[in-house]
Formats: sequence, C-alpha cells, structure tokens
Amino acid sequence: MVDLTQLRDDEVFRAFASYATIILSKMMLMSTATAFYRMTRKVFANPEDCATFGKGENAKKYLRTDDRVERVRRAHLNDLENIVPFLGIGLLYSLSGPDLSTAILHFRLFVGARIYHTIAYLTPLPQPNRALGFFVGYGVTLSMAYRLLKSRLYL
Amino acid sequence: MVDLTQLRDDEVFRAFASYATIILSKMMLMSTATAFYRMTRKVFANPEDCATFGKGENAKKYLRTDDRVERVRRAHLNDLENIVPFLGIGLLYSLSGPDLSTAILHFRLFVGARIYHTIAYLTPLPQPNRALGFFVGYGVTLSMAYRLLKSRLYL
Amino acid sequence: MVDLTQLRDDEVFRAFASYATIILSKMMLMSTATAFYRMTRKVFANPEDCATFGKGENAKKYLRTDDRVERVRRAHLNDLENIVPFLGIGLLYSLSGPDLSTAILHFRLFVGARIYHTIAYLTPLPQPNRALGFFVGYGVTLSMAYRLLKSRLYL
Repeated sequence: MVDLTQLRDDEVFRAFASYATIILSKMMLMSTATAFYRMTRKVFANPEDCATFGKGENAKKYLRTDDRVERVRRAHLNDLENIVPFLGIGLLYSLSGPDLSTAILHFRLFVGARIYHTIAYLTPLPQPNRALGFFVGYGVTLSMAYRLLKSRLYL
Repeated sequence: MVDLTQLRDDEVFRAFASYATIILSKMMLMSTATAFYRMTRKVFANPEDCATFGKGENAKKYLRTDDRVERVRRAHLNDLENIVPFLGIGLLYSLSGPDLSTAILHFRLFVGARIYHTIAYLTPLPQPNRALGFFVGYGVTLSMAYRLLKSRLYL
Repeated sequence: MVDLTQLRDDEVFRAFASYATIILSKMMLMSTATAFYRMTRKVFANPEDCATFGKGENAKKYLRTDDRVERVRRAHLNDLENIVPFLGIGLLYSLSGPDLSTAILHFRLFVGARIYHTIAYLTPLPQPNRALGFFVGYGVTLSMAYRLLKSRLYL
C-alpha cells in the first residue's frame, strides 16, 4: 500500500492547496468573462466564431477589437504572469517546512490582493487601487522566494 | 538514503506526471508552429529577426502581422490559460488521494479535449468544435477543483 | 507530528526548488521592466493609468503602444510560455528519482539559457543569440520530458 498521508495531512500543504485552487478558479473565470463580453458585444477574433451572424463580408465586421474585451484580456494575462510564480514558489515554499501561521498569512494576502486587483482592473477603480493589488501580490511572492532561498538554497 | 519511493510509485501521481508531461510537450509544439509560420511567411515581430532578408527599410516590410501567425499565437495563449490551472489543480488533486480510475478519467478527458481544441483552432474547424474542446477541458479542471476543496479545504 | 523531511532533504528536489525560484524571480522582474518603460516613456494601456498626466483628451494621447514596451512584453510572454513547461515537467522529473548531477546539469542549462534569452531580447543582440537561448531552454525541457516518460510512463 502506498502511504502519502504525511503529505496529505500536512497543514501548510493543505492550506496551500486550498488557496491555490481558489485563485486558479478565479483566474479561470476570466475566460468566461472574455467569452461573455465577446458574445454580448459581438467582438470576435476568429472568422469561424461569428459565422452565425452572417456570411462573408457581413460577418467580417465583427472581427474587431473592443476596449472592454481587451481590458479583460489584459487582466487575465496579468493574472497568468503573477499566479504562475505564486504557484511554483508557493508550492516549493510549502514543502520547505515554514511556520504554519506565517505561511497562511502569505497565502491569504496573495489571494486577497489578486482578487482586489481583478476588481480594480475590471470596474475600473482609479489608480493606485490596481497598483496596490499588484504590488501586495508581488511582494508576497518575493517574500516566499526569499525565505525559501535563505533556508534551502542548493545550487 | 532518501526514500521518495512512496510518492514515485503512487499510481495516481504517475498517471498525472505522464498526462501533464504529454500536454505540456504539446503546448511547447505551439512555439515551433509559430516559428514555422513566421519563417515561411516572412512575418516578424523584431527587426533583428529579419536582418538576413535585407538592411534598413528593406527589412522593415517584414515587421507585420499575419492572420495565420496570430491564430497560432491565440491558440498558444489559450493553452497557457487553461493548462496552468490544470497543472496546479491537477497536481494538488493527485496528491489528495483520489480514486485511481476517476483521476485517470479526468486526465484523459483533459488531454483529449485540449488536443482537440488545438486541432479545431488551427484547421480551423467550424464552431462549436473549438468551444467543445475548451469547455470539456474547463469542466474537467473545475471538477478536480471541486473534489479537492470538498475533501481537503483548509483556510 | 508530520514528517516531510524525506522530501525536504532530497538533493534533487532542493536543487530544483532553488533553480525554479531563481528563474521565476527573474520572470517577475519583467513586470517591473514593463512598468519602468511605461512610466519613463509615458505609454499606457488603461485610461486610469495616465489620469495624473491630464484630463480627458489630453490624457488620451498616452494610450499608445511603444516598440520598447512591446519588446519587453513579448520577452515576458515568451518566458511564460517556456517557464511553465519547465516548472511542470521539471517538478515531476525531480520527483522521478533522476541522477543528481544529470538533474543539476539540466536545471543550470535551462536557467542560464533563459537569462541569456532575456539579455538577447532586451539589448537586443543580433540573431541567432536569442534563438540560441530559446532552443537550449527548449531542448533541456524536452530532454527532461523524454527521461520522465521513458522511465515512468503510466497511461
């Protein structure tokens, strides 16, 4: 019998798994938001996507860009650029034996900051709201990277 | 002696490792596809990339966009947006002790759906072929997220 | 007491954690580089970002694209496209029990190649400098994928 219960029951790892799953699910919502704005505003990137709105030249007028759609896409790309380092560094940090309450503080701050970033981007709220969300998430990831490298560096 | 054999021999983990490696390798092929179309169609984003085709003004005409290249790039970005959540959620789900046959069903569906999505995007096949590939992969990832959070939530 | 020390003290895993953290931190620097060029060149994507430079029509002139900013953004996206497979495949490869010196050679080559790719992209150096950085990183990731699938395939 394989016994992975040590890993499975580690509290830091369970907390990381929960927060990572939540923030990844939030990121996936951005795809739905893009699709929603594309459908309601009839703004498409591919000819086959607007085939139901007409044939030939008639359909081509829907192949355009739109401020709202581009805004969601930028928010989505910013999520990718920031959640990928959090996933990688956060997983390795979780497995490096950090203090539970410190680790959970990091995860909560990151998830809160990224949700705030998305709200600030899509509303949009005036700056520096979005910048604040960005830099808190950024700082949390760097803090985990620093703690990981300080205690476990092996080159 | 370090002994990681428990993890290494866990069947769910081995299956996840195999399917994740396959779908990531497929995603990497998109870079090659972009490079292929850029070379054969002489469509470049950077002046230094088309320096061999002439100097100065003569080379600048190759700094342009092309429908085919943009299509591959959109397919690549869509892969990134969907494979990153699969990697993160799938890894954590694999370590949470799921039933082997359920887990493998999830992995197979996801990998099949994303390969179908790429074929539908690049051919291109008429909609809703691409949408089908997208939503199956999306649903599989959300199903793993739900199972993970239901059994292991720790906030 | 939970005991994850086996994993924590595994040398290959520690080396992977160190190199992955370094290359992810480098990738995060690209966000800072983009922000730096946006501020110094006054090139923005969102109206709320340039609100301090004037109101209404006066601010709109800063909503533009710029070669330098687009170059950093392409380098950042290329990082994402290549570091995500490295993270996923590299983690699974690290846990599959590879030879320590072979594994470290892979990690060092990848990290070196990606740093070189960034330097070549941002300077910019003439081709094939950037292509070299790209293909070395690409080959290293495929080599890990091949070794992983050869020894651990489970479909």
